Amino acid sequence: MAADHPEWAAQQPYKAVLENDMETIKKSGMKGIGQLLMTTHAEITTEEFDTDVKKWVNTAKHPTKNVGYDKLVYQPMLELLEYLRANNFKTYIVSGGGVDFMRAFVTEIYGIPSEQIIGSRIKTAFDNNDGNPKITRIAELDFIDDKAGKPLAIQKIIGKKPVFSSGNSDGDLQMMQWTSSNKYKSFMLYVHHTDSLREWSYDRDSHNGKLDKGLDEAIAKGWTVINMAEDWKVIYPFELKRK
Amino acid sequence: MAADHPEWAAQQPYKAVLENDMETIKKSGMKGIGQLLMTTHAEITTEEFDTDVKKWVNTAKHPTKNVGYDKLVYQPMLELLEYLRANNFKTYIVSGGGVDFMRAFVTEIYGIPSEQIIGSRIKTAFDNNDGNPKITRIAELDFIDDKAGKPLAIQKIIGKKPVFSSGNSDGDLQMMQWTSSNKYKSFMLYVHHTDSLREWSYDRDSHNGKLDKGLDEAIAKGWTVINMAEDWKVIYPFELKRK
Repeated sequence: MAADHPEWAAQQPYKAVLENDMETIKKSGMKGIGQLLMTTHAEITTEEFDTDVKKWVNTAKHPTKNVGYDKLVYQPMLELLEYLRANNFKTYIVSGGGVDFMRAFVTEIYGIPSEQIIGSRIKTAFDNNDGNPKITRIAELDFIDDKAGKPLAIQKIIGKKPVFSSGNSDGDLQMMQWTSSNKYKSFMLYVHHTDSLREWSYDRDSHNGKLDKGLDEAIAKGWTVINMAEDWKVIYPFELKRK
Repeated sequence: MAADHPEWAAQQPYKAVLENDMETIKKSGMKGIGQLLMTTHAEITTEEFDTDVKKWVNTAKHPTKNVGYDKLVYQPMLELLEYLRANNFKTYIVSGGGVDFMRAFVTEIYGIPSEQIIGSRIKTAFDNNDGNPKITRIAELDFIDDKAGKPLAIQKIIGKKPVFSSGNSDGDLQMMQWTSSNKYKSFMLYVHHTDSLREWSYDRDSHNGKLDKGLDEAIAKGWTVINMAEDWKVIYPFELKRK
């Protein structure tokens, strides 16, 4: 978008992005990040946004892993999803990520259709537009699908209590608690990022994906906790092809 | 609920309900109706609400038709839903009605699972409640699934544009417009209530379910309009049993 906004060369937080200056971006905090998200994710139609995200997925590379972001998925997660569906489970993604952002590529990767993808949302507006109707994304938050928001979204959109849920941060804890209260047998699964070599290692002190209260409750209640370093022979699907 | 609220005997709009005084209820307008809805539909858990609605469906009778409300469904609509599903359509209800209200009985009647029921919502709150988590309904509107709200909800929750939509009021018009803009072939179907003998007859001047702009646009664009009096041999399923 920078070509249409020459003023960004001198204006934060845009300047920092254009200069790949991660320190300044981090210092801009939630306010700066929010401004970047709204600028890049709003004031366009849902169709235009979908096209933009698909283009990004097909071109962007992870700065240190040097592969596309769609390659950085977990092989054990793909196998689990397939196993659940083979046993007549209906699989959903319930993520803090933006729902329309995920929909642009998640179906192809995880085999989960758009109506089974639940996420955070900004507001939208409908305009009949003289017979060429469009839905436009508005630069205002509608719903944050995190923490208590997850069981609330599950109740709003699905209307059933899960029998199985899996997550990797404190943002998933309330969804786990809701799942564990199912009158049927239920399964709660936490992924603990412990592999600093093949992936990343973080938990209680991390600013992103903090896993602290969730880990305590999982241990106290005997929920299953995956130790990535020890339990996963393979992390990324591309490791399989190298063998 | 009146047994726990003796003060309602002297307090509107509750007094009017207890005395079955429809004129006073109508005069209380949207404010009064809203107050009644919030009082009866909020400050309880989603499970309690589900139990309450099921009890109501199993006991309440329509004042003039003298049958349960769950009997006042359309036989041609049931047949259409079955026909669509037999041809691999995924069928949804997208209604102005409350989503959790509908979920208590709609699945059994229409064969539509809870996750394919979209409706209006009040706000909710999650409480882990010392390990017995509950979701409580809050007396505040969250989303009205009517007019422009319908295509917006379809995009938010389903994330795909319909190829078929049907409705009976101006509240469905934007959903029809959105459907008609599908790049694939699409089908827009309006039900026109023209049968004052077997059902009801109303359209442009009705306070409930007004069909005015929608009828004009359907005629102008060649959408299918069902004339209930002329086109439907049978309206209610119970007519079939009488034959």
